[in-house]
Amino acid sequence: MKVMEGLPGGFLWAAVKAGIKASGKSDLAACLVDGVAQGAAVFTSNQVVAAPVTVGRNHMSATGGRVGLVLVNAGNANCATGQAGLDACNSTCTAAAETFGCIFDEVFPSSTGIIGVPFPADKVIAALPELKASLGNSAEHAKSFARAIMTTDTRMKVAQTSLHTDDGEIRIFGVAKGAGMIHPQLGAPVAPHATMLVYLFTDVEAESSQLRELIPLAVDKSFNSISIDGDTSTNDTVLLLASGASGVRLNDQNKAAFAAALNEVCQKLAYAIVDDGEGVTHVVTLHITGARNEYEARQIAKSIAHSPLCKTAWSSADPNWGRLMAAAGYSGVEFDPAKVKVRIGEQPVYENGMRSPDFDEARAHTVMQQRDYTIRMDMGQGDAECRFITCDLTAEYVRINADYST
Amino acid sequence: MKVMEGLPGGFLWAAVKAGIKASGKSDLAACLVDGVAQGAAVFTSNQVVAAPVTVGRNHMSATGGRVGLVLVNAGNANCATGQAGLDACNSTCTAAAETFGCIFDEVFPSSTGIIGVPFPADKVIAALPELKASLGNSAEHAKSFARAIMTTDTRMKVAQTSLHTDDGEIRIFGVAKGAGMIHPQLGAPVAPHATMLVYLFTDVEAESSQLRELIPLAVDKSFNSISIDGDTSTNDTVLLLASGASGVRLNDQNKAAFAAALNEVCQKLAYAIVDDGEGVTHVVTLHITGARNEYEARQIAKSIAHSPLCKTAWSSADPNWGRLMAAAGYSGVEFDPAKVKVRIGEQPVYENGMRSPDFDEARAHTVMQQRDYTIRMDMGQGDAECRFITCDLTAEYVRINADYST
Repeated sequence: MKVMEGLPGGFLWAAVKAGIKASGKSDLAACLVDGVAQGAAVFTSNQVVAAPVTVGRNHMSATGGRVGLVLVNAGNANCATGQAGLDACNSTCTAAAETFGCIFDEVFPSSTGIIGVPFPADKVIAALPELKASLGNSAEHAKSFARAIMTTDTRMKVAQTSLHTDDGEIRIFGVAKGAGMIHPQLGAPVAPHATMLVYLFTDVEAESSQLRELIPLAVDKSFNSISIDGDTSTNDTVLLLASGASGVRLNDQNKAAFAAALNEVCQKLAYAIVDDGEGVTHVVTLHITGARNEYEARQIAKSIAHSPLCKTAWSSADPNWGRLMAAAGYSGVEFDPAKVKVRIGEQPVYENGMRSPDFDEARAHTVMQQRDYTIRMDMGQGDAECRFITCDLTAEYVRINADYST
Repeated sequence: MKVMEGLPGGFLWAAVKAGIKASGKSDLAACLVDGVAQGAAVFTSNQVVAAPVTVGRNHMSATGGRVGLVLVNAGNANCATGQAGLDACNSTCTAAAETFGCIFDEVFPSSTGIIGVPFPADKVIAALPELKASLGNSAEHAKSFARAIMTTDTRMKVAQTSLHTDDGEIRIFGVAKGAGMIHPQLGAPVAPHATMLVYLFTDVEAESSQLRELIPLAVDKSFNSISIDGDTSTNDTVLLLASGASGVRLNDQNKAAFAAALNEVCQKLAYAIVDDGEGVTHVVTLHITGARNEYEARQIAKSIAHSPLCKTAWSSADPNWGRLMAAAGYSGVEFDPAKVKVRIGEQPVYENGMRSPDFDEARAHTVMQQRDYTIRMDMGQGDAECRFITCDLTAEYVRINADYST
């Protein structure tokens, strides 16, 4: 994914090495808004949330969605750090507000990395002057932001698009990080952790209330429709910021087109997260059709996406549809197995309660040897459907997450 | 686990090689009741069930719980095999009834192994005469039954106990198989697949209705409280058979003691299943206390037991309580993270919303280097608790389940 020309106006990006990542790579990133942006955010639904999630929620609530500065560190998630973690987050926000010349609660903090380890606020604060001095609006600056927030990611994740309206051009630029602990469930306080962080920058002129309306829809079909390991993070955050620098107002005429453009960016980033998932060798799209409703379609998809037996079979391109059917069967959704049809790519594998007469194991195996393919399951019950993007489970995933030295 | 003397009377066991397992090992087992046993069974709650589950349910319903013969094969699960699978199951039951001289619907069939592959009824039927000729009531015969039903199991799983009552001795002997696709959810039609099969033989004299009352309780604290990979099988079956050969009737005086003895056998078998789980190097007991109710305690335990990040951390003895808290946080159960206390073995690791001041990483790591240890999580909300037995996730698990050759 390349950052091209045509970044949205009104934002300045920077990143520095604050010494939080053990690797010594850049680990502190900022985005300063030229003026103040209108914003909307959705956070993890986990009961256990990191200090920056608590602080970010409070700030968005206090300001009604105004954001002057985004401050993100990688290497330490500041999660399960108690009151000391909240204090550390607040003190970095205070120092950042001073350094960057904005209001305390217009600082939007995010953290990602190890959880439970005391947060090194001193390192962040010490690095702020250099961070400010590094700000710029070039593609290189935007890329430096995207790189600094990476943890186990092997690639930076960015996506951008632009929209031509009667009033002028609107640009959207998105940055994401996340490669493990990926099963974002943003919104309702239900469930999350390898943290996904997503920042969506646009130069449209919009009210925070308009953005709050748009973001759940964009998130629902993208970040809430992916899973790497089924572990929902304590830090997942999606922030949408509108600088207004384009001079184009979001209105009834351009709203649908803007929503579509935003969805496109979110879907590209969501795909990129799975594609860069820890140890991933296959990206599998589960297309569940013929369900009674979308909720049930998604329940079935999640059950398959979280089944270690389905995921290990994918890692060896094994067309084991029996595991798919079993996982659907314990999803909690009622259905008649005799009405279900399963295809891998275009290859029929299961129908009428048994192996399809057209099942061709070699062909199905060939489809599954591709890095990216789709499994279709028609439940034969209705018209609802969903697409859910997930991946295989490999020994490399285990190695990455079991990496612990005494 | 050794089969000792003192097997319950009234049962004859046998096993032969029917040529279903690719390995060529014994794969067809029978238990013939001397007369007719009273029985009770619980099956997987998966929507997708194997043919023998459908047939077994029908037979138990038709006979009111009478069983004359248990016929189990390993190597083919006869699942997702459509009408042909049901026909194959019925034809093996018919042939077995003829060979063994019992009534068709008093034959209780079970299958375990690969799913979706047409069931080789001819092989089973051809092996029946030799199977009958092999019957016997010695420990060797019982062991041959336990070995034949193994699939990816590395060890046979048996447990037994005896109970002295005023009226005489009652014996219980249990046999189990299962090492992967283990997250049995027996009972209500909700969710299950590496199939767990459990046969509990006792010589108490009991009505089927009495057994039906006992079995859910025994299953709840044992097989429904374990998980290897969170995949619930299409074939899970627990069958309790009472031959009456002891001459001791189950009554109000001895019922509680019998229930306790049955629970003991079930818990030993359940533990043995996890201990022999695919690729398992650590058996972890999750002891959730201080929950508002037992359901919530179990929801939290399951969320942790199914978290790939928790399970991979256990594989390297990493005291990563942040992953434990994150998994509890997305369990769907409401709680206050600041009230939760976590201990690994006797080592305090988390309290007051952060790392315990008494946290000693080296000591916690040492606890986790043991093959078997307990993680305690006190939710600080109430008096309910649960114990749930699970295991780590290793690269070996992935290898076993990704093993597919073109």
